[in-house]
Amino acid sequence: MRIGVVAPSSRFGEETAQRVTAIAARVRPEVELHFHPQCFRAHNHFAGTDREREEALVEVANDPAYDAVWFARGGYGSCRIAEAAIARMGEAARAKAWLGYSDAGFLLAGLYRAGFPSLAHGPMPQDVVREGGEAAIERALAWFASRPSEALEPGLEPGARHAAFNIVVLAMLLGTPLEPDLAGHVLLLEEVSEPMYAIDRALFRLTASANVRGAAGIRLGRVSDVLENDPEFGEDEEKVIRFWCAKAGIPYLGRADIGHDSANRIVPFGLSEA
Amino acid sequence: MRIGVVAPSSRFGEETAQRVTAIAARVRPEVELHFHPQCFRAHNHFAGTDREREEALVEVANDPAYDAVWFARGGYGSCRIAEAAIARMGEAARAKAWLGYSDAGFLLAGLYRAGFPSLAHGPMPQDVVREGGEAAIERALAWFASRPSEALEPGLEPGARHAAFNIVVLAMLLGTPLEPDLAGHVLLLEEVSEPMYAIDRALFRLTASANVRGAAGIRLGRVSDVLENDPEFGEDEEKVIRFWCAKAGIPYLGRADIGHDSANRIVPFGLSEA
Repeated sequence: MRIGVVAPSSRFGEETAQRVTAIAARVRPEVELHFHPQCFRAHNHFAGTDREREEALVEVANDPAYDAVWFARGGYGSCRIAEAAIARMGEAARAKAWLGYSDAGFLLAGLYRAGFPSLAHGPMPQDVVREGGEAAIERALAWFASRPSEALEPGLEPGARHAAFNIVVLAMLLGTPLEPDLAGHVLLLEEVSEPMYAIDRALFRLTASANVRGAAGIRLGRVSDVLENDPEFGEDEEKVIRFWCAKAGIPYLGRADIGHDSANRIVPFGLSEA
Repeated sequence: MRIGVVAPSSRFGEETAQRVTAIAARVRPEVELHFHPQCFRAHNHFAGTDREREEALVEVANDPAYDAVWFARGGYGSCRIAEAAIARMGEAARAKAWLGYSDAGFLLAGLYRAGFPSLAHGPMPQDVVREGGEAAIERALAWFASRPSEALEPGLEPGARHAAFNIVVLAMLLGTPLEPDLAGHVLLLEEVSEPMYAIDRALFRLTASANVRGAAGIRLGRVSDVLENDPEFGEDEEKVIRFWCAKAGIPYLGRADIGHDSANRIVPFGLSEA
């Protein structure tokens, strides 16, 4: 299988790509990873200009030689190109498997809205730099290659629909042309590097959404590297999610094994076959 | 005139209240400031529990003895109580003048949606601690007392409708029960203490809104204390607002004299009589 890697958000490094390629060659020789040259471009904060990122994404998406698209990393920037890129994608793009999380959630949301059938929230090449990151890469490659159940988030319910997002990313895409229909879905949410007040504020917005209120429930992944809150916020992420779910009448269904770390398990969007 | 001060968001200090009271006694002896005891309560991040903040806000709003409500400060927290508090307000609340900005934008938005006629974006008691903060307090008191044109943002157009918000606050209240109708309004926006990527992301969300796209245009206030962006974002706030306005077809109308500083001029919501 051939996987095309593109970087629609923040800058990505060649050395990181080499580490991921080496792991793939060792554990999944049947997988051929192709890092599009755009991955190594830099324009300010981003992995190339908006135009460069959009062109590379559309090129790999529409190229029938690739079986899958893997987002190199998150950071920030895919919302600047997602709507335009998705509008240019054809049947070859729809046939591919897509994997990413964090800022890539803007793209996963828009692709899900567009009816793409094989999308998943899970590790990206950049995760190789994390402690234990090799396991995250192996998990992602395993999912691309053979969809083993060990790679999946363990609480996915057979016959239920799922979607997974970073909290602030989801809050920022509701009400935009990227917003997917989440009716009846179990929503798995995670967050990183935000102060707790900002998480609380994003959950206000998120749980006020009629779309999110139509979800079957919310499961909370890890909320890591919480930034200092002065004074102390005094409530942890679980208290905060329970508060907003109760207020909005959304069932809170417990914790989820996802997050900005190497243990991040995979959540395929849509109906679970698990 | 009697002004009731409440603190629907972050903690507020007694010493700060005393400084503001002293200024009022000196420059506006005709104004009687009453800091509700709730202003000095503390519950974690907030100036009291959600219940304490909601009760104080509703009590002062509905008390016919007060001519105005002044929000003590921003920070975070008014979105947790705004919808419930506004639902409990009657005619005495509607007759009052209301002033605040930053996190108080959640309340101003909800009150504007509810049709309250005398709302304004402008300085709050906490601004006294800023460099030159006394001028901000005097400006606010002047607005309450006599609506002098020098207190107003100088670019307000006679006969046009205006509204002013913090960028992230507006992004987070769109799509919630606090969202007001902004059709035909000139929108004045400001921001503080966010990295530029987060401002860009909030503007993506904001300019994707059909409601905001129906505005007459956007004017950009000051974007101050911009947090470090690694790597450098490479575009300043004006480039970023022009980018999103152009993409969304919203007229960009130039800069505005508002922001998280003592020069923050006042923007009455709705039709300008200036």
